[in-house]
Amino acid sequence: MSASVIEALAGIVGARNVISDPDAMVPYLKEWRDLFRGKAQAVVRPGSVAEVSAVMRWASENGATVVPQGGNTGLVGGQIPIAEGREIILSLQRLDKVRSVDPAGDTMTVEAGVSLQRAQEAAEAAGRLFPLSLASEGSCTVGGNLSTNAGGTAVIAYGNARELCLGLEVVLADGRIWNGLRQLRKDNTGYDLKNLFIGSEGTLGIITAAVLKLFPLPAARATAFLAVPDPEAALALLNKAKASAGGTLTTFEIMPRIGLDFVVRHASGARDPLSEPSPWYVLMEVSAQAETGLSDAVEAFLGEALEEGLVTDAVLAGSLGQRADLWKLREMLSEVQTHEGGSIKHDVSVPIQATPEFLKRAIAAVEALVPGCRPVPFGHLGDGNIHFNVSQPVGADKAAYLAGWGAMNEAVHAIVTELKGSISAEHGIGRLKRSLLPGVKDPVELDLMRTVKAALDPKGLLNPGSVL
Amino acid sequence: MSASVIEALAGIVGARNVISDPDAMVPYLKEWRDLFRGKAQAVVRPGSVAEVSAVMRWASENGATVVPQGGNTGLVGGQIPIAEGREIILSLQRLDKVRSVDPAGDTMTVEAGVSLQRAQEAAEAAGRLFPLSLASEGSCTVGGNLSTNAGGTAVIAYGNARELCLGLEVVLADGRIWNGLRQLRKDNTGYDLKNLFIGSEGTLGIITAAVLKLFPLPAARATAFLAVPDPEAALALLNKAKASAGGTLTTFEIMPRIGLDFVVRHASGARDPLSEPSPWYVLMEVSAQAETGLSDAVEAFLGEALEEGLVTDAVLAGSLGQRADLWKLREMLSEVQTHEGGSIKHDVSVPIQATPEFLKRAIAAVEALVPGCRPVPFGHLGDGNIHFNVSQPVGADKAAYLAGWGAMNEAVHAIVTELKGSISAEHGIGRLKRSLLPGVKDPVELDLMRTVKAALDPKGLLNPGSVL
Repeated sequence: MSASVIEALAGIVGARNVISDPDAMVPYLKEWRDLFRGKAQAVVRPGSVAEVSAVMRWASENGATVVPQGGNTGLVGGQIPIAEGREIILSLQRLDKVRSVDPAGDTMTVEAGVSLQRAQEAAEAAGRLFPLSLASEGSCTVGGNLSTNAGGTAVIAYGNARELCLGLEVVLADGRIWNGLRQLRKDNTGYDLKNLFIGSEGTLGIITAAVLKLFPLPAARATAFLAVPDPEAALALLNKAKASAGGTLTTFEIMPRIGLDFVVRHASGARDPLSEPSPWYVLMEVSAQAETGLSDAVEAFLGEALEEGLVTDAVLAGSLGQRADLWKLREMLSEVQTHEGGSIKHDVSVPIQATPEFLKRAIAAVEALVPGCRPVPFGHLGDGNIHFNVSQPVGADKAAYLAGWGAMNEAVHAIVTELKGSISAEHGIGRLKRSLLPGVKDPVELDLMRTVKAALDPKGLLNPGSVL
Repeated sequence: MSASVIEALAGIVGARNVISDPDAMVPYLKEWRDLFRGKAQAVVRPGSVAEVSAVMRWASENGATVVPQGGNTGLVGGQIPIAEGREIILSLQRLDKVRSVDPAGDTMTVEAGVSLQRAQEAAEAAGRLFPLSLASEGSCTVGGNLSTNAGGTAVIAYGNARELCLGLEVVLADGRIWNGLRQLRKDNTGYDLKNLFIGSEGTLGIITAAVLKLFPLPAARATAFLAVPDPEAALALLNKAKASAGGTLTTFEIMPRIGLDFVVRHASGARDPLSEPSPWYVLMEVSAQAETGLSDAVEAFLGEALEEGLVTDAVLAGSLGQRADLWKLREMLSEVQTHEGGSIKHDVSVPIQATPEFLKRAIAAVEALVPGCRPVPFGHLGDGNIHFNVSQPVGADKAAYLAGWGAMNEAVHAIVTELKGSISAEHGIGRLKRSLLPGVKDPVELDLMRTVKAALDPKGLLNPGSVL
């Protein structure tokens, strides 16, 4: 990196907020699952919106390309440059203020670098719920959540990050600041620019702050771990629960027996809460604004579901400790797969009602492709979003198995496409799925995306090589 | 209109679907509140997406400007050209198919010209709720609802039209068709083009069909008409209801005594359901997925609210007939104002918690401006969205009063802007509010809007003179 570039950036953010030493850059360049290592000229850490703006003004004047980064927890490489290393990483971590919490209006305004967990805690301290919830919440940031339109385990009731945002502050490619930090529930005064930046993975602008929606804290939650015979039954149970579980259905997650086996085998303290094994399980949670009646309603609901054969066995958490134990079975599911060798991953969605067909066909397809492989499909059945992970055959060579990643992706994505699904339900496109896009997107849509990109970032400075 | 233009359009849609006779065009050019009369070269009524596409291809090749129109119920003139009359109105009314209803996946796919009421009925026939609900639902269309991001009385629970849409089919300015009719709850494969077209009032593309979200039909509803001492109490009641009304709060509408007076005076069969007059009222509805317990919960809730002084009197509907009577008090509120002479209107929103302050200041401002004027502010307190209508002083000259429309708008909008609100909460900008935009929008935001418009409609063919 040229001394003049370091000097220019240091002039904006201070010398100690420009990192160019290769070792010191490692935390910003290491993909957290160790799938690859990135390269960059430098990491710049602005401490305010004005500094982000000044960095982008400088970048625009000098043709420097910039990759915005939050908590570096992304799953598709959108936050890490992997090409020639000419990019500058712009870390938002120092923009970490909770600017305001407004319980009377059910909103909070936070900066991009605030971790999701801190945002949740700030809401709860004011007696409110910020419902976005996902595995990396301790380290991912609100800015990253919004730029990738993060999902997680509460989408069925509260929506993705997109649905939880009322307003944004964004630094544009030329350094101008768009102040769209509105607290309004309704505003029809022009184009919806907010949603254009949300989910654009840092390629159209840099989100520096956001107004988030808050909700009343649920007064009661009923959490159940349910044995279900098959995905068809799980789907019927889902529709039954949406219609009449006695409160708001806030979680509906599916997992196969092998997933539970992996968790029990590898996660310390985890145990199967049911006496007999079942081919599939559902973690269901219903929330209510009043204690009274919720348990009774859910028990009655489960009684019916047992009678109808949708559920074959059930455990209802009787304490917060038991609730945590049930949730742990779901939360550990991703991590424990690393103990079973290589795992080829897909983050797909299909129309909800097509989920059983997708599972049947995709399991058959990967088993035909790699005999002995072990599908561990799990996730957000309530959103039609399955993390279709496939562990290697027992005893197989990990590297050889992972070399088939592309071929397996192709087989699974072909089924997804036939069922009019999405090859990235909640993780985004980033760098890892960019090459897949032309295969699944209507050319008109791709062209519209390119048109928008060219209009908002005509010099191509923002996160080049990501998404498009 | 030149014969060659008629011939070209007739060649696409058939001669009987091109209207150029001035009398026959009247229904398409008359603004329904009779605020103005539009002018156009012709009305073209394509019968399919392919025909909409062919019309736009022809328009693009010939530089013809096009104003898309649904049910012609818009409140800001976005659907009617009012300038030189060179525009062609493209009516979507013949695209009136409900393409599919999918209760298992909770979606339906309908064409733009389907009326909102038909969409509601198609959902209900499949045992589902399509919750968008507004005064003109009998004649407004789904395409118009989406292009204006319509609101209404259920936004507090279900969101605006934007939140109720999963996918779109859009004809672009150059005639290309974007098929974005996805049924997915989660799809992070690129930019959110859908939300760019929603709310853009036909200036970026023509919505021809949409995938809409459906919900379980509520099993029970509790509807209450409540006397409240002031907007502060109404706001406290709102937050209390959100936290604990024993179900989902699906309606929370405020109205002043004078509004109820107008309804009782002018709407046949309407009567005041409470024995003593109150300065303010709230129409509240709570929905639940089970009959059991809802009435008890709402009664207990209202008992507490009475004790706390948030409510001074209450009536709870005991039958569907009583529910209809209570709803009628709210639904007639707009219409009855026509019987009281001129009414100057505002469709504004502020952060929810600022609503009482807004009401106090705006009432004082208009009373200072026009002594004797009668403010009738009402609407969606749950969304911070007030229809701040002001009836003329008793006995005043209507025309002279209405001549002060702009001055009163200015006074009210200045307060809205100070409170960081919106001068168009749910009606849009159209032609009527276009000149107000530069006064209330950040220049960066206006410039971003112009950039997007130029990128998607470079020849400026779509709804010129609307929004921007």
